[in-house]
Amino acid sequence: MSESRSEISQLGEFGLIDRISKNFTLQNRSSVKGIGDDAAVIDAGDDYLLISTDMLVEGIHFDLAYMPLQHLGYKSVAVNVSDIAAMNGKAEQITVSIALTNRFSVEAIDALYQGIKAACDNYKVDLVGGDTTSSVSGLVISISVTGRVKKDQVVYRSGAKPNDIVCVTGDLGAAFMGLQVLVREKEVYEADPSMQPDLEKFEYLVSRQLKPEARTEIIYDLEERGVKPTSMIDVSDGLASELLHIVKNSGAGIRIFEDKVPIDQLTFETAIEFKLDPITCALNGGEDYELLFTIDQNDYEKLKNHPDIHSIGYMHDKKDQNVMISKQGTVVPLRAQGWNHFTSNPQT
Amino acid sequence: MSESRSEISQLGEFGLIDRISKNFTLQNRSSVKGIGDDAAVIDAGDDYLLISTDMLVEGIHFDLAYMPLQHLGYKSVAVNVSDIAAMNGKAEQITVSIALTNRFSVEAIDALYQGIKAACDNYKVDLVGGDTTSSVSGLVISISVTGRVKKDQVVYRSGAKPNDIVCVTGDLGAAFMGLQVLVREKEVYEADPSMQPDLEKFEYLVSRQLKPEARTEIIYDLEERGVKPTSMIDVSDGLASELLHIVKNSGAGIRIFEDKVPIDQLTFETAIEFKLDPITCALNGGEDYELLFTIDQNDYEKLKNHPDIHSIGYMHDKKDQNVMISKQGTVVPLRAQGWNHFTSNPQT
Repeated sequence: MSESRSEISQLGEFGLIDRISKNFTLQNRSSVKGIGDDAAVIDAGDDYLLISTDMLVEGIHFDLAYMPLQHLGYKSVAVNVSDIAAMNGKAEQITVSIALTNRFSVEAIDALYQGIKAACDNYKVDLVGGDTTSSVSGLVISISVTGRVKKDQVVYRSGAKPNDIVCVTGDLGAAFMGLQVLVREKEVYEADPSMQPDLEKFEYLVSRQLKPEARTEIIYDLEERGVKPTSMIDVSDGLASELLHIVKNSGAGIRIFEDKVPIDQLTFETAIEFKLDPITCALNGGEDYELLFTIDQNDYEKLKNHPDIHSIGYMHDKKDQNVMISKQGTVVPLRAQGWNHFTSNPQT
Repeated sequence: MSESRSEISQLGEFGLIDRISKNFTLQNRSSVKGIGDDAAVIDAGDDYLLISTDMLVEGIHFDLAYMPLQHLGYKSVAVNVSDIAAMNGKAEQITVSIALTNRFSVEAIDALYQGIKAACDNYKVDLVGGDTTSSVSGLVISISVTGRVKKDQVVYRSGAKPNDIVCVTGDLGAAFMGLQVLVREKEVYEADPSMQPDLEKFEYLVSRQLKPEARTEIIYDLEERGVKPTSMIDVSDGLASELLHIVKNSGAGIRIFEDKVPIDQLTFETAIEFKLDPITCALNGGEDYELLFTIDQNDYEKLKNHPDIHSIGYMHDKKDQNVMISKQGTVVPLRAQGWNHFTSNPQT
């Protein structure tokens, strides 16, 4: 029997998601928003309940040669909490499913769950369920998170309108450079196990890669200052990719300025040392877990003194003109070159 | 550096869950019930929101040599919907995360999601999110389901009291015998690929293994007849294991009668053909996804004419006396010998 065979790599992850989701429509009244944002939205009386899920696979998303299990546990919770923050919500519960081989000891599982517990304590999230099973090879962690937001406070990717200001928290590209440092040190160690990794200088970058934090305090700051973003997303695949998600969902164009994109000094210097362009790392590196959002111009005054929120550009009405103005004043089209696990090597 | 190492197989799955969960306590008011039932319970206005999750791993939970991807998709939804039914709730949303290698084509993923969609349509559940990623080896499916129940209608594993009647739906052991048939046919085929599998005679058993159904209609039937079970659980690990969960959570003892345990004629005959004891298959086979529940004696009249609900025993006040009365009248202690993925071969 001959059947046609198409490769997943031809579609890419977003193409695959589009292909899957086009066959599904929502039929329950309680399903307010399905596939296509940082979290799904479910009716829950006065509030909306938010739900999101992430799967982390050994050898694809993490390498236990440099990722301690405690950090892995912490990170796997943080990235889920970040998805809830990106809806302007607060995470409340998680379920954790793990599949693992008998290569892992009980002590290893203890370490993983110590990290999960540290994140639960930090983000005030309850572990309410999960599944534990064995696997044929390696470790797989699947976490689902539920969160809550008042109905009139939910923020989607789709609400940005012309003249809105584009904001991003923290700094970008550090987690990506942290990964480059870890990969290099692993190679050095593998070539000569007597070499001790020299990570002290890169501590900030490595910590951004190994133990990222969800920017939950930003959600409280926005609430306190009376600002509801018009659109929001978290930066997991890279700034450029996320900007284009907002563009696609909002139907408005975006213009950002290279000299406004926040890049930490160490990220910048390390990128140069690695012969990488710092702005490319910031645009496409991913795993920053910062919040990217747009606000109405009238709200700008309320946020402009916030030490960790940076305006990097604005929305306009030409949705096919999505560009960055470089430091030299040239106009560079924004392109998503985020992580794509279905093509080439995802970790480098 | 020397560290002590303990093997997961020494703990078993339930021991591992106990070890993990004892370190976690609930801190959010919205977290009504955490680990330890078929689903977690979250406050949602007038209702409770239920959430449960299951992970299915290739080579552990399924073998693609005999499990068509469409059936796998269907089954992975059905087993989650069953967990919501076991709380007396109705499933409404699912998220589906998959990790897979490039051995899988786009057409294979289409087949998987066709099965998922068929189950969503059948159970009136919306696919609202998920994650797709690559894996180093094999296919992993992680599904989370959300459901809903009126606050006064939620049923836990913990409410059974002395003199309650123990009921189970459908029949037991068929899915286990279906697996035995499939494993045997696979061995025959591997020994001689010209042999065609002869599955027609075993169709009912094979369909119970490959395409189990959640007993959602039982939840409607109970509602219609005005019966709220005092405790409930779904039969995933085997009747004996589930009975002991009710005992442990309710603090009451259980007594069942072998001649009341529903076993289909084909299950019985095939067990004999395989030199297996039919009642052992029913007690320990698992994957039946029937509902096991207890009712107050006063509700017995309302259910006794239901064609698919069978009373198999009763609760009593001696919580350490959990027994089956055999057809010969002997008293056999109930022991959980359900699936344990962390010891020996889980598929046989």
